[in-house]
Amino acid sequence: MAAKTNPGRFFEDYKVGQVIEHAVPRTVAEGERALYHALYPARHALYSSDVFAAHCGLDGSPLDDLVAFHVVFGKTVPDVSLNAVANLGYAEGRWLLPVYPGDTLRSVSEVIGVKENSNGKSGNVYVRTQGLNQNDEVVLEYVRWVMVRKRDAASPAPEAVLPELRKVVPPEDLVIPEGLTFEDYDFTLSGEPHRWGDYEIGEKIDHVDGVTIEEAEHMLATRLWQNTAKVHFDATFREDGKRLIYGGHVISMARALSFNGLANAQMIVALNGGAHANPCFAGDTVKAWSEVLDKAETEAPGVGAIRLRLVAVKQGAAPFALKGEDGKYAPEVLLDLDYWALMPM
Amino acid sequence: MAAKTNPGRFFEDYKVGQVIEHAVPRTVAEGERALYHALYPARHALYSSDVFAAHCGLDGSPLDDLVAFHVVFGKTVPDVSLNAVANLGYAEGRWLLPVYPGDTLRSVSEVIGVKENSNGKSGNVYVRTQGLNQNDEVVLEYVRWVMVRKRDAASPAPEAVLPELRKVVPPEDLVIPEGLTFEDYDFTLSGEPHRWGDYEIGEKIDHVDGVTIEEAEHMLATRLWQNTAKVHFDATFREDGKRLIYGGHVISMARALSFNGLANAQMIVALNGGAHANPCFAGDTVKAWSEVLDKAETEAPGVGAIRLRLVAVKQGAAPFALKGEDGKYAPEVLLDLDYWALMPM
Amino acid sequence: MAAKTNPGRFFEDYKVGQVIEHAVPRTVAEGERALYHALYPARHALYSSDVFAAHCGLDGSPLDDLVAFHVVFGKTVPDVSLNAVANLGYAEGRWLLPVYPGDTLRSVSEVIGVKENSNGKSGNVYVRTQGLNQNDEVVLEYVRWVMVRKRDAASPAPEAVLPELRKVVPPEDLVIPEGLTFEDYDFTLSGEPHRWGDYEIGEKIDHVDGVTIEEAEHMLATRLWQNTAKVHFDATFREDGKRLIYGGHVISMARALSFNGLANAQMIVALNGGAHANPCFAGDTVKAWSEVLDKAETEAPGVGAIRLRLVAVKQGAAPFALKGEDGKYAPEVLLDLDYWALMPM
Repeated sequence: MAAKTNPGRFFEDYKVGQVIEHAVPRTVAEGERALYHALYPARHALYSSDVFAAHCGLDGSPLDDLVAFHVVFGKTVPDVSLNAVANLGYAEGRWLLPVYPGDTLRSVSEVIGVKENSNGKSGNVYVRTQGLNQNDEVVLEYVRWVMVRKRDAASPAPEAVLPELRKVVPPEDLVIPEGLTFEDYDFTLSGEPHRWGDYEIGEKIDHVDGVTIEEAEHMLATRLWQNTAKVHFDATFREDGKRLIYGGHVISMARALSFNGLANAQMIVALNGGAHANPCFAGDTVKAWSEVLDKAETEAPGVGAIRLRLVAVKQGAAPFALKGEDGKYAPEVLLDLDYWALMPM
Repeated sequence: MAAKTNPGRFFEDYKVGQVIEHAVPRTVAEGERALYHALYPARHALYSSDVFAAHCGLDGSPLDDLVAFHVVFGKTVPDVSLNAVANLGYAEGRWLLPVYPGDTLRSVSEVIGVKENSNGKSGNVYVRTQGLNQNDEVVLEYVRWVMVRKRDAASPAPEAVLPELRKVVPPEDLVIPEGLTFEDYDFTLSGEPHRWGDYEIGEKIDHVDGVTIEEAEHMLATRLWQNTAKVHFDATFREDGKRLIYGGHVISMARALSFNGLANAQMIVALNGGAHANPCFAGDTVKAWSEVLDKAETEAPGVGAIRLRLVAVKQGAAPFALKGEDGKYAPEVLLDLDYWALMPM
Repeated sequence: MAAKTNPGRFFEDYKVGQVIEHAVPRTVAEGERALYHALYPARHALYSSDVFAAHCGLDGSPLDDLVAFHVVFGKTVPDVSLNAVANLGYAEGRWLLPVYPGDTLRSVSEVIGVKENSNGKSGNVYVRTQGLNQNDEVVLEYVRWVMVRKRDAASPAPEAVLPELRKVVPPEDLVIPEGLTFEDYDFTLSGEPHRWGDYEIGEKIDHVDGVTIEEAEHMLATRLWQNTAKVHFDATFREDGKRLIYGGHVISMARALSFNGLANAQMIVALNGGAHANPCFAGDTVKAWSEVLDKAETEAPGVGAIRLRLVAVKQGAAPFALKGEDGKYAPEVLLDLDYWALMPM
């Protein structure tokens, strides 16, 4: 009669080349779409209106790209980050197929790197995760790496394997959804007149609005993605009695706030990198700003790509706060995300 | 490189005759229906059961009439009330078509009146807003007027235009949904035996139940309608650190509470007027009472119309609290709404 | 002009043999499914994935069995427990048909027992409740008994009728959904390798995880089931200013937490009994443990039945806390539930 509960994997349990099929597939539908709009001030028209999406050549309004990300990510938590000390980074994320109501998602990860820390108590694990739909098509993939505790500090260090990861997904590798066109794009209905050509590399945008976060909201969101890491839910778990807010909640909040100034940055197609710079707790008021990092053309009609830094900050942040002179994130910075979005040219 | 964020319109930006197409169309579906039931103690059977609605001659259960109102209203906020000092009133509201899961709504407003205030710092703007579905059919229309700041106190006052607004939508202008019949109405399943004939003009009903409001709930609701006015979400925005609750949240809460005593006032067909008498904040306990203001017959089988005053109050209110001897609303009164509903005869 | 609001039934109003058709049928759909996942850390694969459910021989993923229970239960509240002093017990509960998105549920109860208490101020009422779908098929039935206030302490006691209730639903009376098979069951996707044969009678499982409950969450849930008992919503109702959490919220929370150790206890098919041992309030952190009470085979391919005690506790509970030496529940025990679930053999 073995213990039935999942103790999570420790650093020793990860081997390069290992493939982990994550549990609990999930059918996402119109309920998830409505909840996303209740949880975040999401207004991007392509994800709000079936009619608008059809005018852009899609079959209907997909679920927000971050719904796909959170659902795929959530499944990996029991296998990847239950004993994680820190979520260190993301790279090479790409959205490959829109997710529509009725799709069923599951996740598979491959271990692509391990490196023990010099203290011998933990190590970094790199996994490449794919989200697949009911037709076994990959809808999303990304690399993330986490620091994981060792089960036993005395166990020998494995041979270090560090994957070569690109700093940025090159524009030619961006996958544009089949049929997507922004040639008949309605800038009135989308909410802003600014098109791809109106944004300059280096331009910064203060998204103005702020949202004060409640415990109930981040827990509703995090459960919706079946991310059940107890640090998000159990006020008796941390010594300070605080529940740590799932980093993805901050990503979605900041992305939704970025509508005000980036209403036409419709689809997220790549995640180049990201850091959860500081923890976020209920009571914090989240605001966001963006910086245009790069631009590229695509082969889809009227569709440009824009590379954006999305920064979430909390109350007390200086304008466009990011890092101090020491190169460290300012304490009010919650998130520094680097992604590619599609925008009408 | 112009600023990309929306500063909102000021009083000077509104001209009589101007038509504003509001941004971000929205597909509403069964997720919104479920959330409405989670957010409010809504029990009116026509909006709860496809089978009940079919027995009443409809294709299925429509989304609550107030879902349609909130979605249409929410779209107007960035264009009409971002710089509003006060939401002054409603008139001539009519529901013209039920909204079903899968419908896509958008909003268009026409400026029908402007009048600068004597202080020269602000003015009143009157707009008639229509909500349209994916077939360009008008599902809802109403007039509202707001007090909006001037950009520049020195700018000259426009010629004052005050629209003639009817105090009450006359019964002959009420639009009954096609096919609606209450001839086979099931008073057991609807929850109360009281029919149109059982209500007397002047009758007041205390709806008994109360709900204490939480920050998370009013924010979930307000975001769901894509109303992103920061005063509802950002605890750092007002000097007192309070988030003002969207007036529509109080409307829906009071209407849902009115089930207890008005379970058969099924469909809202007109909004004659309304005042958000005092602000509502999280922690307030909302209760409601109604007064029968008028009754009318309709041509639909078994369908009567009842004109109701719906008053929302908070803790500490006297029974049937409304106005003091000075003609001003009692401080515990949150809402005074005047509407027509359809009820089995 | 009679009072229009529902005062609820008092003890005198219940007669053995009386049948009560409860009000407000409800169509449940994908919105309710999504909300269930947002409200509880529910991960059982059969209720999460249409594809997984289809592999188990079902038409798709049903709504969680507890959604059916809560919706059916919620409808009985205005007729059964509005004036209840206490919810005393459950028995003979059986799930007879899965509930799918789009189904419309209503509830009917028969009074099967009454017994006045010796103090003459209240009495116990026993009802057998059935939940029916749009085809008048019974999807669920259970007995519950409540203590109800008398309207008038002077009214004579009725003849006491105590129904004979089975302590446990015998395995041969469990109804297995048509077509259900666990022969092709995927233990990787379900999240745990433990099958029916791996559990021993008497085995106890600590489900490890905990969730701290917020006011907004339990109110969203309770409203979703259209249970509008004011004690759950109105902070001015109880003298201590607390809102009592609907016992069903604790049932769902504990059942969802039990995934960790009982991921393959997929479908609930019977409720043998249950006690809400102590009240739960916002701020409490709920954890759960289970005990295997019995096991049985079924005729469905690969499907075993497992009888489980599910105990919900709050912060401060001793490991596997249940009752003290006095036979009374420990003060940290919230729920003691006895149910049958279906598990792959």
